[in-house]
Amino acid sequence: MKTESIEYQDGAVTLRGFLAYDDKKTGKRPGILVMPEAFGLGTHAKERAERLASLGYVALAGDPYGNGVEYNDLQEAIKHVGALREDPAKFRQRGRVALDKLASLPQVDPNRLAAIGYCMGGTFALELARDGASLKGIVSFHGGLETQRPAASGQVKAKILVCTGADDPFIPVAQVNALADEMTKAGVDWQLISYGGTVHSFTNPEAGKVGMPGIAYNKSADERSWKAMMAFFDEIFA
Amino acid sequence: MKTESIEYQDGAVTLRGFLAYDDKKTGKRPGILVMPEAFGLGTHAKERAERLASLGYVALAGDPYGNGVEYNDLQEAIKHVGALREDPAKFRQRGRVALDKLASLPQVDPNRLAAIGYCMGGTFALELARDGASLKGIVSFHGGLETQRPAASGQVKAKILVCTGADDPFIPVAQVNALADEMTKAGVDWQLISYGGTVHSFTNPEAGKVGMPGIAYNKSADERSWKAMMAFFDEIFA
Repeated sequence: MKTESIEYQDGAVTLRGFLAYDDKKTGKRPGILVMPEAFGLGTHAKERAERLASLGYVALAGDPYGNGVEYNDLQEAIKHVGALREDPAKFRQRGRVALDKLASLPQVDPNRLAAIGYCMGGTFALELARDGASLKGIVSFHGGLETQRPAASGQVKAKILVCTGADDPFIPVAQVNALADEMTKAGVDWQLISYGGTVHSFTNPEAGKVGMPGIAYNKSADERSWKAMMAFFDEIFA
Repeated sequence: MKTESIEYQDGAVTLRGFLAYDDKKTGKRPGILVMPEAFGLGTHAKERAERLASLGYVALAGDPYGNGVEYNDLQEAIKHVGALREDPAKFRQRGRVALDKLASLPQVDPNRLAAIGYCMGGTFALELARDGASLKGIVSFHGGLETQRPAASGQVKAKILVCTGADDPFIPVAQVNALADEMTKAGVDWQLISYGGTVHSFTNPEAGKVGMPGIAYNKSADERSWKAMMAFFDEIFA
């Protein structure tokens, strides 16, 4: 497997992503954009990109902030998330440039793309879908579901899979129900899995380091949601 | 594959179930109880039992009413469901006798049992779980989630997977949320998949015959929920 740092631009901002693919494979393969948690592009999203590469996909873990910066402090991360999400058009653009970079790679089939994301990365994936990006599907893991620009009827090309913790304090039931209403009204093919006894950041083995109730790794929900994603990919890339 | 009619008793009532298994296989295998929709034991549940048998399970499609009776008219079926559900202890007993019959079969491993069900059959499966039956797991497909006897903390042995249509008029959001609360409070391992654009009876290709809005087959949700069940079985029987 080959992994490399990969640069791309959003206007004046230089993003530094992480690319993983099997360099023994030939021919164009489906490309998966992997957007990380609010802390920035770190170990967790990179490890998922490597897993996807080992399964035959070309995976690009995107950089949300520029220069591959990571924030270790939750409050600092939240501040930067706020700045990034202030303008929904700019937020979508930050996802778009990563997806465009992925689609442009010689080993990627630009007609077979998906986006997945964790926490804020899940919101990136959803916003790309709402924006009508040419994606076969998106998967959000403990991602924020709210938006300033709800999906318009007939505009969403991606099938949507949302994996969320039933006890996630950042994704309350009202937010889940609002997404369901939004996607149903927009005629989207969507499904949502709610995991009982599961809180925010359930896919990240390092989640406990934040030291906050409501943020914790959950091995069972992590493994189940990964398998649900694989079944979803089998369907959308069939 | 071998299929046969199989009789068992609930007090004075003779139930007539449908057993399916691979008679070329030797040794004890996991047993799956399949409880049908409110119309009684018909083609749909029998076909699912056959599918499970072809996958190596011993499957018993249970008879909810006695003598294998089927009702073709929805209103008539609803009347009989009402009678059956009036006394929660009797309702659970009707499920228990089917599960006991399955567990007693020589080809079944009584330590590896699951129950699945459709519509009222999903309620049967859930009530068995609430009753503390020795099940590795249960799966409810478009099943009613309400109960007169909520699960008590620590009493449920089964892992729970609920597959429900987001637009099912018989299973509104309030019912889904109540189940989530009940199962979380009882410390149950549960997960719930909500399928967008999907109404009641989504697994039954004949659902349209009822001629009622809110009851319709949905091929995509049928196939997705079947695959989710298979992944769940892989986990609970691992």
